[in-house]
Amino acid sequence: MKTVTILGATGSVGTSTLDLIEREPGMFRVKALTANCDVARLAEAAKRTNAELAVVADESCLPALRDALRGTNIGTAGGAQAVCEAARSGADLTMAAIVGCAGLRPVMAAVEQGGTVVLANKEPLVSAGEVIFAAAARHDATLLPADSEHNAIFQCFDAAQAKHVRRIILTASGGPFRDWSLDRMREVTPEQAVAHPNWSMGAKISVDSATMMNKGLELIEAARLFPVDPARIEIIVHRQSLIHSLVEYADGSILAQLGPADMRTPIAHCLAWPERMATPMAPLDLVAIGRLDFEAPDETRFPALALARRALDAGGARPAILNAANEVAVAAFLARRIGFLEIAAIVADTLDRYDPPAPETLDEVLAIDAEARTMAGERVEDGVT
Amino acid sequence: MKTVTILGATGSVGTSTLDLIEREPGMFRVKALTANCDVARLAEAAKRTNAELAVVADESCLPALRDALRGTNIGTAGGAQAVCEAARSGADLTMAAIVGCAGLRPVMAAVEQGGTVVLANKEPLVSAGEVIFAAAARHDATLLPADSEHNAIFQCFDAAQAKHVRRIILTASGGPFRDWSLDRMREVTPEQAVAHPNWSMGAKISVDSATMMNKGLELIEAARLFPVDPARIEIIVHRQSLIHSLVEYADGSILAQLGPADMRTPIAHCLAWPERMATPMAPLDLVAIGRLDFEAPDETRFPALALARRALDAGGARPAILNAANEVAVAAFLARRIGFLEIAAIVADTLDRYDPPAPETLDEVLAIDAEARTMAGERVEDGVT
Repeated sequence: MKTVTILGATGSVGTSTLDLIEREPGMFRVKALTANCDVARLAEAAKRTNAELAVVADESCLPALRDALRGTNIGTAGGAQAVCEAARSGADLTMAAIVGCAGLRPVMAAVEQGGTVVLANKEPLVSAGEVIFAAAARHDATLLPADSEHNAIFQCFDAAQAKHVRRIILTASGGPFRDWSLDRMREVTPEQAVAHPNWSMGAKISVDSATMMNKGLELIEAARLFPVDPARIEIIVHRQSLIHSLVEYADGSILAQLGPADMRTPIAHCLAWPERMATPMAPLDLVAIGRLDFEAPDETRFPALALARRALDAGGARPAILNAANEVAVAAFLARRIGFLEIAAIVADTLDRYDPPAPETLDEVLAIDAEARTMAGERVEDGVT
Repeated sequence: MKTVTILGATGSVGTSTLDLIEREPGMFRVKALTANCDVARLAEAAKRTNAELAVVADESCLPALRDALRGTNIGTAGGAQAVCEAARSGADLTMAAIVGCAGLRPVMAAVEQGGTVVLANKEPLVSAGEVIFAAAARHDATLLPADSEHNAIFQCFDAAQAKHVRRIILTASGGPFRDWSLDRMREVTPEQAVAHPNWSMGAKISVDSATMMNKGLELIEAARLFPVDPARIEIIVHRQSLIHSLVEYADGSILAQLGPADMRTPIAHCLAWPERMATPMAPLDLVAIGRLDFEAPDETRFPALALARRALDAGGARPAILNAANEVAVAAFLARRIGFLEIAAIVADTLDRYDPPAPETLDEVLAIDAEARTMAGERVEDGVT
């Protein structure tokens, strides 16, 4: 019986995690569930799973949560500090699925208690990667990646043979504009950018897929997670998004993980690891799929890839700046304040202008994140050329 | 430093094994090398690797071997019994690469000394599978598969999670006639059948690929090697032969092994296991390859698949009969005595007519093999309709 805490239980990853846990009542017991302010879903989930504790990050939602859970044995709490306390609830496994930098302190709290922490968002690895990994080493915490690409690498990467890994090959769908000319991409609208061909995702992450910045961020994540020279991590466009990534060894063997385009497979892998558990999706039917295609990514049309590699190679504060500037630029694009190709231009400009020392604490990461957002916002105001 | 004995050192697998070992002089030391009668190659290899012992199975070739190795410290011996003694030379790893049933007694000798035995031919798994596996369990020997499909499965199969394996998917090139009609296949010549699109192989194994009997035999091998219900082993046609096989788990993850069409990758995996070692081939370039295709196999045009599954399900002597009858039928086809489609007909007929009790010893396996060959040969004489 594994005890589980879910940080961000009402979002997409949190909901998928609950779905899997509730199908295997003999395998898991829920300690704490947290949400921002979706009281109805949080309270329902806490009751269904008989959780010990339910927490809202937004303290103003706490009275409603108390009402919803009155008459149960489920504890309640509210506020950012309460979320961090929930992250320290002593669960064997903590699913860290809070979107954005709001999730960083709770992830650090979970890491500091030394259990298994499943990372479902990119900030802990991109913006705070060096800081979080140093803390995990100090506290003997195990970090598992739940997003499909890094989970695929994790399934194929034999840590005992890391010195014999020749390449990590990160697959990219290429996004909705993989076949578009640069001229056509200049005119892309937010509506076109959020229509992702393979995955159903939120607007921000869909735009990241369209610019391929998502793959750039994943490149940085992969470099944090796996002990391989970043120059040995390649990106390949695989439009069907069924091979989620590959690892090549010195003997020429390439191990690949394939799976349905459903987050429940990598989440289940993390939940059950080192065992396996069942998921309810239909098996992949390779005959029905018929073919899998591969192409080289085009860094001219997708400059985000080179920007991310540059930030990774420079290290220190650079990945956090890349991520913060990208968030601001994507928001500006979605608000129709800048064009699609200006997203990368704003990121490049912010990386050029801002070069603080490497952060050593979460507070320093958050300060860099805030400053990079301010600078990227100024450039949105001023206009980019 | 791993000590290695190679049974069948001058054949294709033996030569590849020597190539890899000689590239890593710090990893391996050669105990014994055996060959049938290719004295020149055997003596050269023994001298290059400074082997302790060189053995010819054909005793009449022993004087030539002694001449070739005069003045060295390399011991010499000849005859079938000497090959079995070489197999008991106390090597950490024995590469069992003797073609045909001649390899069975040496494999058993290697198994009985309890080390690691790499199986590079199908007879130990198909004809004598139950007998060899029982011996391996008794003597605590480790059996590793060196052919590309089973080695791929071995790389993807987590034995600790065998109960969570949902499917093994064995890939088949489909052979040169995968797109031919049954009518056209009726007229196939030996020259057409031995021209395999992906691998350079001998005539017998090329015909097995053309009839897809090779995949039927591999189905039986997979069922011996991996603790999975045979009904969960599927065959899929993948014409590029770059994904060598796949394993699906309960969570929906499918792990696949890809690699160049070069036996040195799976051989290197077995030699170095559980470590890895380098091979000299160029890495797979997925972008240059461009696409991977999958189709369902057609059991009407390729009845060998259903025959093999029938033999596997019946068990006992049936796999040995299938293999023996197939060898006789393929030889008759190559001698232009029967047509291409009659190969499967002769195998089916022999399976129908001969139903001995399950063999419990190697002697019983060899007697069944001989009797099945006689019966299949009679049917070649009589003609099949």
